[in-house]
Amino acid sequence: MKKQIKIATIGGGSSYTPELMEGFIKRYDELPISEIWLVDIEAGKEKLEIVGKLSQRMWDATPYKVKVFTTLNRKEALVGADFVTTQFRVGLLDARIKDERIPALHGMLGQETNGAGGIFKAFRTIPVIKEIVEDMKVLCPEAWLINFTNPSGIITEAVIKHFGWKNCIGLCNVPVNSMMSEPRIIGKDLSQLNYQFAGLNHFHWHKVFDEEGKEVTAQLIDHINEKDGGTPANIFEAEFSLELLHSMNLLPCGYHRYYYSEKEMLEHSLEDFRKGGTRAEQMKEVEAALFEVYKNPDLNKKPEELQKRGGAYYSDAACECISAIYNNKGIRMVVSTENNGAIPCLDSDSIVEISSIISAKGAEPIAWGKMESFEKGWLQLMKAMEECTITAALSGDYGMALQAFMVNPLVQKGSEAIEVLNELLVAHERYLPQFKEKIAELKKQGVESKDSVVVELMKNGY
Amino acid sequence: MKKQIKIATIGGGSSYTPELMEGFIKRYDELPISEIWLVDIEAGKEKLEIVGKLSQRMWDATPYKVKVFTTLNRKEALVGADFVTTQFRVGLLDARIKDERIPALHGMLGQETNGAGGIFKAFRTIPVIKEIVEDMKVLCPEAWLINFTNPSGIITEAVIKHFGWKNCIGLCNVPVNSMMSEPRIIGKDLSQLNYQFAGLNHFHWHKVFDEEGKEVTAQLIDHINEKDGGTPANIFEAEFSLELLHSMNLLPCGYHRYYYSEKEMLEHSLEDFRKGGTRAEQMKEVEAALFEVYKNPDLNKKPEELQKRGGAYYSDAACECISAIYNNKGIRMVVSTENNGAIPCLDSDSIVEISSIISAKGAEPIAWGKMESFEKGWLQLMKAMEECTITAALSGDYGMALQAFMVNPLVQKGSEAIEVLNELLVAHERYLPQFKEKIAELKKQGVESKDSVVVELMKNGY
Amino acid sequence: MKKQIKIATIGGGSSYTPELMEGFIKRYDELPISEIWLVDIEAGKEKLEIVGKLSQRMWDATPYKVKVFTTLNRKEALVGADFVTTQFRVGLLDARIKDERIPALHGMLGQETNGAGGIFKAFRTIPVIKEIVEDMKVLCPEAWLINFTNPSGIITEAVIKHFGWKNCIGLCNVPVNSMMSEPRIIGKDLSQLNYQFAGLNHFHWHKVFDEEGKEVTAQLIDHINEKDGGTPANIFEAEFSLELLHSMNLLPCGYHRYYYSEKEMLEHSLEDFRKGGTRAEQMKEVEAALFEVYKNPDLNKKPEELQKRGGAYYSDAACECISAIYNNKGIRMVVSTENNGAIPCLDSDSIVEISSIISAKGAEPIAWGKMESFEKGWLQLMKAMEECTITAALSGDYGMALQAFMVNPLVQKGSEAIEVLNELLVAHERYLPQFKEKIAELKKQGVESKDSVVVELMKNGY
Amino acid sequence: MKKQIKIATIGGGSSYTPELMEGFIKRYDELPISEIWLVDIEAGKEKLEIVGKLSQRMWDATPYKVKVFTTLNRKEALVGADFVTTQFRVGLLDARIKDERIPALHGMLGQETNGAGGIFKAFRTIPVIKEIVEDMKVLCPEAWLINFTNPSGIITEAVIKHFGWKNCIGLCNVPVNSMMSEPRIIGKDLSQLNYQFAGLNHFHWHKVFDEEGKEVTAQLIDHINEKDGGTPANIFEAEFSLELLHSMNLLPCGYHRYYYSEKEMLEHSLEDFRKGGTRAEQMKEVEAALFEVYKNPDLNKKPEELQKRGGAYYSDAACECISAIYNNKGIRMVVSTENNGAIPCLDSDSIVEISSIISAKGAEPIAWGKMESFEKGWLQLMKAMEECTITAALSGDYGMALQAFMVNPLVQKGSEAIEVLNELLVAHERYLPQFKEKIAELKKQGVESKDSVVVELMKNGY
Repeated sequence: MKKQIKIATIGGGSSYTPELMEGFIKRYDELPISEIWLVDIEAGKEKLEIVGKLSQRMWDATPYKVKVFTTLNRKEALVGADFVTTQFRVGLLDARIKDERIPALHGMLGQETNGAGGIFKAFRTIPVIKEIVEDMKVLCPEAWLINFTNPSGIITEAVIKHFGWKNCIGLCNVPVNSMMSEPRIIGKDLSQLNYQFAGLNHFHWHKVFDEEGKEVTAQLIDHINEKDGGTPANIFEAEFSLELLHSMNLLPCGYHRYYYSEKEMLEHSLEDFRKGGTRAEQMKEVEAALFEVYKNPDLNKKPEELQKRGGAYYSDAACECISAIYNNKGIRMVVSTENNGAIPCLDSDSIVEISSIISAKGAEPIAWGKMESFEKGWLQLMKAMEECTITAALSGDYGMALQAFMVNPLVQKGSEAIEVLNELLVAHERYLPQFKEKIAELKKQGVESKDSVVVELMKNGY
Repeated sequence: MKKQIKIATIGGGSSYTPELMEGFIKRYDELPISEIWLVDIEAGKEKLEIVGKLSQRMWDATPYKVKVFTTLNRKEALVGADFVTTQFRVGLLDARIKDERIPALHGMLGQETNGAGGIFKAFRTIPVIKEIVEDMKVLCPEAWLINFTNPSGIITEAVIKHFGWKNCIGLCNVPVNSMMSEPRIIGKDLSQLNYQFAGLNHFHWHKVFDEEGKEVTAQLIDHINEKDGGTPANIFEAEFSLELLHSMNLLPCGYHRYYYSEKEMLEHSLEDFRKGGTRAEQMKEVEAALFEVYKNPDLNKKPEELQKRGGAYYSDAACECISAIYNNKGIRMVVSTENNGAIPCLDSDSIVEISSIISAKGAEPIAWGKMESFEKGWLQLMKAMEECTITAALSGDYGMALQAFMVNPLVQKGSEAIEVLNELLVAHERYLPQFKEKIAELKKQGVESKDSVVVELMKNGY
Repeated sequence: MKKQIKIATIGGGSSYTPELMEGFIKRYDELPISEIWLVDIEAGKEKLEIVGKLSQRMWDATPYKVKVFTTLNRKEALVGADFVTTQFRVGLLDARIKDERIPALHGMLGQETNGAGGIFKAFRTIPVIKEIVEDMKVLCPEAWLINFTNPSGIITEAVIKHFGWKNCIGLCNVPVNSMMSEPRIIGKDLSQLNYQFAGLNHFHWHKVFDEEGKEVTAQLIDHINEKDGGTPANIFEAEFSLELLHSMNLLPCGYHRYYYSEKEMLEHSLEDFRKGGTRAEQMKEVEAALFEVYKNPDLNKKPEELQKRGGAYYSDAACECISAIYNNKGIRMVVSTENNGAIPCLDSDSIVEISSIISAKGAEPIAWGKMESFEKGWLQLMKAMEECTITAALSGDYGMALQAFMVNPLVQKGSEAIEVLNELLVAHERYLPQFKEKIAELKKQGVESKDSVVVELMKNGY
Repeated sequence: MKKQIKIATIGGGSSYTPELMEGFIKRYDELPISEIWLVDIEAGKEKLEIVGKLSQRMWDATPYKVKVFTTLNRKEALVGADFVTTQFRVGLLDARIKDERIPALHGMLGQETNGAGGIFKAFRTIPVIKEIVEDMKVLCPEAWLINFTNPSGIITEAVIKHFGWKNCIGLCNVPVNSMMSEPRIIGKDLSQLNYQFAGLNHFHWHKVFDEEGKEVTAQLIDHINEKDGGTPANIFEAEFSLELLHSMNLLPCGYHRYYYSEKEMLEHSLEDFRKGGTRAEQMKEVEAALFEVYKNPDLNKKPEELQKRGGAYYSDAACECISAIYNNKGIRMVVSTENNGAIPCLDSDSIVEISSIISAKGAEPIAWGKMESFEKGWLQLMKAMEECTITAALSGDYGMALQAFMVNPLVQKGSEAIEVLNELLVAHERYLPQFKEKIAELKKQGVESKDSVVVELMKNGY
């Protein structure tokens, strides 16, 4: 008999937690959890309490005896954990507001996962995830780290390649979204199709085959601009050029719109900004409303409202992945894991997002083989951006941060890009100990954000 | 409803055919075959008839209505076929006798799959498989070619990379043998273990993990020199050095004995030769006896005697592979397929033997990742040998044939190696149209084999 | 005694030809030329005559007996040629005007070598250079092709990799410019410094070492924004970020401004456009003036006016390269040649621009080794763009042309990029036989340029 | 004015030292040496004194004021050195006698650079060269290390890749030998030919072009089996197969005879052994005679007798290399240096032996490009052997030593190879501190060499 499972969830006060609970409840028969520890920081204490109580109510409404703990002491949660899931946001949504508003003020896309915003999210997160891994080495050295903190691919690369923690899998709901919506477009059931994904987090392509081995990618391309094609709710649906996609014969992910339709995406994002809000600010309102719902002491299941928010399937993917490891299932999932040659134009020890087999020994990527020039060039550029970002995040080297900006396709290159970099450094000072000296120097030079919302946030001790 | 299946088996007169029938019968419910066409050449006509009749009797003893056809006309068999299996031997066992006796006379290992003999088997087979693929392009352009003709990896590389037939999978029973025998050694069931294989045909390693993800490779290494460890019956069981294997932390295949214990294997093979027979000659006797059994009109199932012969599980692997394609199963099998980066130290378009997922779209290799120096060096050498062999087989270039010999680790390098090459060329003249001119030149120089058995075979017009 | 040399210059009517003559005259003692054939097309006949006469006058003013021929018959010029130089512009400067104006109208940089304009220059040139190589295979199969037609790297890749003409070297004056201006900045003579260049044409970096082996790259970076730093005259000198360059510790080429200061370069180019002219239109005026000077029957040397134009050192580099081959010099030059692994992150058979040794057997690139993430990502992206461009130019595949646009960092991605592509296709119809069908389709859909200057050019039968 | 040069020569008591002196004397005008320090160990003290006095007499016979110091204190010699040359033999010739006799007793080739003997020479040398590099980091951090201690490629890889000392160049006289003897075979002068070498130390190929760029490799192959073809004097001249070489169209190095004619080389070596001596024992006699000559107080130049010994040109190559660095010459030499992609089928950070440009900044390899299958396979295997050897030498890991043996093509694989490994470990105990524990274990098991000469050496405390 296998021992009962202890789960620790870092960033447990997240509004996504009820979905995670639902996923565990659904799988209790195969995944005998005994304890779930939700960890958060002081600033998130209130939310943590609300979510912790709702979570316990959800379990109490089932026949299973599972205890949900909440704590601000990460070490306590990690001791003896079997699976650690990470869904925290360093600096919370306020940090994302800055990530998006400061670039916008300069006419650029912040893009919180792959753009300037994503680079800063990595800068803030990597020092924290490093501490978590160091704790894990001592407190739960056999545990699996299931990461869904964004930028998920970059964080997973830091954990596996730089901190040497091999028992780590990165997750994202974007591939699941595609698989959930595409089959019906061509009158099929998911079980009838073979999906093959390869690329990087938020930058992957896929191809699809039917149960007779015939490729149906081209058919799906024809329908890609229709509503409900699997694009995450948070992405503006600029039209894809069908001629481009047919020429590649690959299905893009929703985030490719930022690259293939950069102009439209930029315009839409700036319009939103001018209309008075970035995506982060909208999210903040949505979150506030959700927590109001969570407080209801009669609520003992995942509320409908959560489903409507972006990020659906995220937590379900995490539960499925955990179960595949625990039960040695050998199922196929799309995860961020070590390349191992599966995408030969990227280094073998790079992290890629790819269709993999998940079993007790973790993820084994399925080899994709040669990428054509167009895909290859793009992938290699994006991986370079990820590498510069990690190197800068680890070293606090300003020149390297500049390199990350200057190789990022969503940053418009020139002196204004440097201004954006500088303002973001100053704005996030509190969460960027590695850049301390450079930030001091920038402040002495008078660098600061001119965005009123950011100014307000800074004033409030943030 | 899927259409009913037509199978064509090239080399259908082989003594292995009854096992293939048994495999199909066992799987009829998932693999609704309507016709099986056994093809052979004039010289194998008698055996073909015997096997054809036995095969039909085997089906007639079941509730299934399957018709077994025998023919010397390959085209007739291929028309509209869904799966083509290849198990032919160009020159039959007499050719193998030459492959083994001529090197032995010079104190070398012939080794019919990876040594000098294997190179010549490839030289004889590649022109024939080329014709088969050309026929298939016209007569059954959607069919799958399931190859088990040896040297299986080399033939599969010729088919996929050089003749451009992508719907091809190479099979071998060596990995199956390991998986059938190893689990019980450590008190496990195969279903509890995760196997990962990678390398080349008859030159691969594997590692094994249990259902909790713990590696058990080292445990299996400890027992590798025990009887019944999964080595094919035809290989002399020289002892492996446990210190070498633990240092690699990989399980070798049985054929690695030829490389890690070259001296012992050579001595054993030469002793056999002096005692009056090569492996090929023993096989010939076994085969003659088998066909006597097959003739029995009351026999309507696979006879016990076949099981004892080497090559067990071969045909079963073929049936399982066909079913996985037909039924889009997505199961894990070890096959020869395009590398696609799965073994990064080999070219992406090279054929490797590797754990793969088999579904309607064929084989997807699971990425293995970095090979350590020792394995990398060996693999790269062996792949070079395979490449030189194919290039020589396609072009008839003598210098390239010499390169294949001179890079083959089982050939002792020096002027005598050239003599072996020359004598084999002359001895196999009939099956080597591509080397016609060089052979004429060698004969003019008086090159001939001095081995009495070979002389006898040559006299008999073979 | 070596035979005397025949030179054929395709695009001989170019205003650069007098510089080429000067280079040959200077080197006559080591490069015994007997005949120079200037070839051009009907549309360039008048210029050809003017330049041909001036060239002959230049030789006649020397003690050397060299005959300059002018012809519209390319084959006549190629027969028995030893060196063929290419400096033609398909569509002349009018084509460049379109390359620059159409993107500008949509707010984009045309950039005639690496941007949308460069892609179209390749589309027009590749079919012509293919014919030239085909002629050479028959008429002068041992000749060397010294290419300075832009985009020089792309054209050289087409010639060597796709048309199989190995005796080809691509040249550019950008590296020479750096080497001519940088040494004095740090008080050195060129002969005291070791330069190492690597990258792609118009996209390479270099590092510099002094005579004691100490690296002086950082010193040169400090001065890079000063006047006269070696940037070609035609490039607006946006400031480089010293922090970025020091972080890379590499010196960029002048064209890197388009990438590192994309915004400033775009603004400057659009301002030029609004002020009434693109760079091409300015060039046209300069050219007209030059030809007036050339007509002077008393002029018998390269006029001062030519020096002031961009492109200095171009022809001198060509003469030096020819002499290095003819005299087996083994000197070091920066050329476009086959990579051969010198830049390991690019394919071995890709063309790169790199410090090489030039001798009778051509160019041997000096291995640069590992590129860091930032440079690697950029290089790989640019190579992908070049590859897509060549594939589209050879096949006339519209989807591939779209891929070239969508992977080009100077093209702003989105639906307007597709409009630019379409308008350029229609505008250059006459020179794009490979895209004939797509252009017909676009015209039927009403695609045309709205730029008045372009409309005017089209009206005039262009 | 450049400062005067201090040279330190580790293993200064070597019989080769007078050649080194001659080389420096010849180049004094370009290489203003002030001090030469000859370092050796206690056991070599007598030879050191003899060589030191001869060296000083050689300088005293010139107009140059150069002082030759002898010392047993390495640190004293290294302080402030500009160039350090290494030509020491750990264990002196007695160690080589063991390297050759022990394998021979088991019917194997010891081969002191690439065979079992070479592996052990590396095992003994790497710990010592590590100490030297550690001293240099402190005492002469800018100095160049010019290594000619064998196995030169392996030692250079350890120094550059593992000990991080980039200012290191490995030298060998094998390429020089070819260049000195081949040109006259085809009636040319060396200055008229372009040589391109690539591969590993004692395992490289070359191709040759004339002054018009025509390849003359095939012509040279035709004459390769003639006397005086450039094979080092110490290698038995088994015949090369011209058909093999023409098929490759590459010239091998003399050491390739061990691989392409392994059988003949083995037989010849065993005959020598049976006749009463290995190469090492012959060398010992030659050395003893040389030192008698050196003692002559009237001798003040390099004696004729030295020229006849193998290893000619070695020291001259070293002097030339030092001068090229000191004078920033930019000349072409064949050296062991970092690959940097020059041979794309090997890792970029591997050490290769290759035609390079030597200047003040060291060696820049000239990119060779794609290797064909045969050469690629061999090279990759040999590099794997080198890597296993270094890893074992650094770690003292017995399993890894076994891997080095089992991947070495000159070791006959099987249980006897393990015996050879074990006996060599025990025989060299004194010089293998890293294998201390394993050796103790082997001795406890009774492992010892049965060769009488070795037994004698061991008895004498050596």
